[in-house]
Amino acid sequence: MKKKEFKTKLRVRFSETDAWGIVYYANFLVWFEVARGELFEELGVDMETWRNAEVMPVVVEAHCRYLRSARYGDRVSVETQVRLFGSKMMEFNYRLMHEKNKQLIAEGYTKHVFVGKNGNPVNTPVFVKKLFRGHA
Amino acid sequence: MKKKEFKTKLRVRFSETDAWGIVYYANFLVWFEVARGELFEELGVDMETWRNAEVMPVVVEAHCRYLRSARYGDRVSVETQVRLFGSKMMEFNYRLMHEKNKQLIAEGYTKHVFVGKNGNPVNTPVFVKKLFRGHA
Amino acid sequence: MKKKEFKTKLRVRFSETDAWGIVYYANFLVWFEVARGELFEELGVDMETWRNAEVMPVVVEAHCRYLRSARYGDRVSVETQVRLFGSKMMEFNYRLMHEKNKQLIAEGYTKHVFVGKNGNPVNTPVFVKKLFRGHA
Amino acid sequence: MKKKEFKTKLRVRFSETDAWGIVYYANFLVWFEVARGELFEELGVDMETWRNAEVMPVVVEAHCRYLRSARYGDRVSVETQVRLFGSKMMEFNYRLMHEKNKQLIAEGYTKHVFVGKNGNPVNTPVFVKKLFRGHA
Repeated sequence: MKKKEFKTKLRVRFSETDAWGIVYYANFLVWFEVARGELFEELGVDMETWRNAEVMPVVVEAHCRYLRSARYGDRVSVETQVRLFGSKMMEFNYRLMHEKNKQLIAEGYTKHVFVGKNGNPVNTPVFVKKLFRGHA
Repeated sequence: MKKKEFKTKLRVRFSETDAWGIVYYANFLVWFEVARGELFEELGVDMETWRNAEVMPVVVEAHCRYLRSARYGDRVSVETQVRLFGSKMMEFNYRLMHEKNKQLIAEGYTKHVFVGKNGNPVNTPVFVKKLFRGHA
Repeated sequence: MKKKEFKTKLRVRFSETDAWGIVYYANFLVWFEVARGELFEELGVDMETWRNAEVMPVVVEAHCRYLRSARYGDRVSVETQVRLFGSKMMEFNYRLMHEKNKQLIAEGYTKHVFVGKNGNPVNTPVFVKKLFRGHA
Repeated sequence: MKKKEFKTKLRVRFSETDAWGIVYYANFLVWFEVARGELFEELGVDMETWRNAEVMPVVVEAHCRYLRSARYGDRVSVETQVRLFGSKMMEFNYRLMHEKNKQLIAEGYTKHVFVGKNGNPVNTPVFVKKLFRGHA
């Protein structure tokens, strides 16, 4: 079964740069999260869905390798992939690239568990399972 | 009655700079808010107090004049003053200065109204009135 | 001569929200700047142009009135207008709106002067004058 | 030879929280960097030193495990340790804790290489070697 990829396009904001003239390193995690949110949304899951299910996909681990820099105004894209998907957690892979030449800027992953209303971990919700069955 | 001033000390973070090598302009509003929060806290009002009172001091206006720049590692301070204080709103003045030479970096103000649980405006809470009576 | 308006579309990021569940107030200045940058770019002026001219359009004043809140995932737009344009400075007006119902979220302005390589103010560059002649 | 630890104290800012009411996950990388900068500074290396040496300690990898959440106003501390230190790179470990009960909020690491004026990798500068000899 093939792994479907989702692509999110972004433009580097001036506020995202630092005094070295490049994008500040923590902002790549922001972009990964924007991409993750768009992936969920494209599959029909938005903030409302999570709220109604009284479940949150909490980050338990994040990792990023930095290969190239990005600068103000650069057009970049994040390719997001469901890397792993289980009964209690899920993982995403991200590849951040320059739009113009497809050169890899960074790659990373995030791991998530699901947390219920009281803050305790819960099983992967059924509506999430249905989404990703076959994707990972 | 004298206007008491509150002082908050900050250090410029690298993440707060931009590609011009100086602090990105929106971050001054962040610092104003840090200063405002510390002022409230010094007077005994924290997040808990607002939550219990089911009231939030929502910003309705913000203004900043930029006179000098600040750079990574600079030690700066914000002097916060209650400018105006009424039955339905309150205003704060801020003066942002370099610690080493007291030169003014920026000055600004914010105006706030109080909003209840349902999002509707409410009168200035009694516990706030008590705090600032005499300050403005 | 009519004032041309430029429109920038944005989507509220989760990182832009705060513990009140709404967009943190300083982020509106970030969006104003994104809009301003796109306006310049649409007119052919990018980071490169400023760098080559050895001039920067430094913010000397920023103002924002907050009328409504915006939440994660909301689609918003910024309408940017050249408010004033002189031999030594320029001003922009911004109107931030919800895309779905055109309700005004915030409005604001920024004032800018031009600063040369050595940090001293300089006259409005000719290439800027040419752009905005007739716009304000 | 013992590994010396450096400790940085921080207070959670409202701007660092998100709509879940907790600190947004990318901000932990910001705090790690604040801690790293303070470690360098405590050892006598500031922005000026790097600039004069025409070298930058670029991040090539970042990792964070999230164990607990932090909320607005929480007092937290980052313990930073030089994990590894070589002729071409160095690594830092971070432990983020609640001040009041020393509970671990997150732990992570960053890897860095040194980059010269032209953007090419260079050997670990001598002034850096001298600092960390014996620390890792």
